[in-house]
Amino acid sequence: MPRYKLTIEYDGTPFVGWQIQAEGASVQGALTDAVERFTGERVQVHGAGRTDAGVHATGQVAHVELAKEWRPDTVRDAMNAHLRPLPVAVLAAERAADDFHARFSAIGRRYLYRIIVRRPDLVLDRDRAWRVLRPLDAAAMAEGARQLIGRHDFTTFRAIGCQANSPVKTLDRLEVEQVSLDVGTEIRVHAAARSFLHHQVRSMVGTLVKVGEGAWTPGDVKAALEARDRTRCGPMAPSAGLYLAEVTY
Amino acid sequence: MPRYKLTIEYDGTPFVGWQIQAEGASVQGALTDAVERFTGERVQVHGAGRTDAGVHATGQVAHVELAKEWRPDTVRDAMNAHLRPLPVAVLAAERAADDFHARFSAIGRRYLYRIIVRRPDLVLDRDRAWRVLRPLDAAAMAEGARQLIGRHDFTTFRAIGCQANSPVKTLDRLEVEQVSLDVGTEIRVHAAARSFLHHQVRSMVGTLVKVGEGAWTPGDVKAALEARDRTRCGPMAPSAGLYLAEVTY
Repeated sequence: MPRYKLTIEYDGTPFVGWQIQAEGASVQGALTDAVERFTGERVQVHGAGRTDAGVHATGQVAHVELAKEWRPDTVRDAMNAHLRPLPVAVLAAERAADDFHARFSAIGRRYLYRIIVRRPDLVLDRDRAWRVLRPLDAAAMAEGARQLIGRHDFTTFRAIGCQANSPVKTLDRLEVEQVSLDVGTEIRVHAAARSFLHHQVRSMVGTLVKVGEGAWTPGDVKAALEARDRTRCGPMAPSAGLYLAEVTY
Repeated sequence: MPRYKLTIEYDGTPFVGWQIQAEGASVQGALTDAVERFTGERVQVHGAGRTDAGVHATGQVAHVELAKEWRPDTVRDAMNAHLRPLPVAVLAAERAADDFHARFSAIGRRYLYRIIVRRPDLVLDRDRAWRVLRPLDAAAMAEGARQLIGRHDFTTFRAIGCQANSPVKTLDRLEVEQVSLDVGTEIRVHAAARSFLHHQVRSMVGTLVKVGEGAWTPGDVKAALEARDRTRCGPMAPSAGLYLAEVTY
């Protein structure tokens, strides 16, 4: 049966997360329903990454098998018509090889985490970033981030319930970018790896914010990593700042 | 009585506009209520510009007179506490001279209009930009924009109900900027003048989009301007793409 690769954007705010759950609206469920309204088929929508409740995507990837050969642009437009008014859109649909798997064929994932440092509540970026009140030292955060790059046992930065077989992952990129805003500063953390542990990005970002506040040194990050102890992690950054930006194949 | 200048950000989506009206929630009403909850006073909140329903601000300015001398940061923080959870925030509060008037002392206003050219519905930028399906020629739009810069009778680009004394305004800046996105293109129109007529920016942007689509030439924009005839205006751009970005004094 023809397989389609879908690139997907969503606002994670109203969803219980990517994955279909017993209660609540999920992104996967929204896509499954949209396929059904489009072709009448009840299919499995396979995603590259299971984002948590409140986490956004600008480049999630999924695949579906449909009974019929459709023009990829028809798949995109029809799914978008049936997704409306939910905040989920198919950015691109492509025909994929029969052995393409959104999750297992992926060779890289990239996440963006947005922090906005300012005193007033977020308004236009509400639910789109983590508002932090106190100034952050971006250079110190970058130095802390460098302690985490490479192949490590990331047990410290792993959710208790994480189902990965191994806590050893290779972090290819963890960069801290600072952008001046009219009011305040935005700090963007870019993270890339073949794959991540559950809650790894938010755990790393929360820890780096401790460094940015001056409460931790970059060396403390290294010590926390080496301890392989979840209790040594900084507080987890909120979901609203996290975006699954790209999946590569 | 001490006068305070407030710089204000808001998401215009849930409001009937800046101005208090008989029905519906307004930004001015939200600020008036926040002052009352803070100091117990029912004051007049004077804004620099009356934005329409759905129009946003990242730099609206207002002034209020309060009975008491407060630390400006206290005014900002207390108002923000009482504005919650409405999507309105006081970015800055400053003591102003007794003759400072948010509207009448202003010497310049700057607006941003955001257009996103892409096929899929907007998700993360929903209600934050105008989604246009067909490609736009930004260079032609810029050439069209240049026809409007300077001192002109802007009757063509003026709402029927506009209450300004004169349709003659001096447009200091109308620039078209193109930004590549992962999916699609963003076109940002920057407009600055001492003051604008009602619906002027949205009327100009809607007309420039006609040029970008190739339906109009830049010369047609000049002819429409010179006709001083509202029926010669292009379709008005939707409110969701418009931001009052700055008011200068």
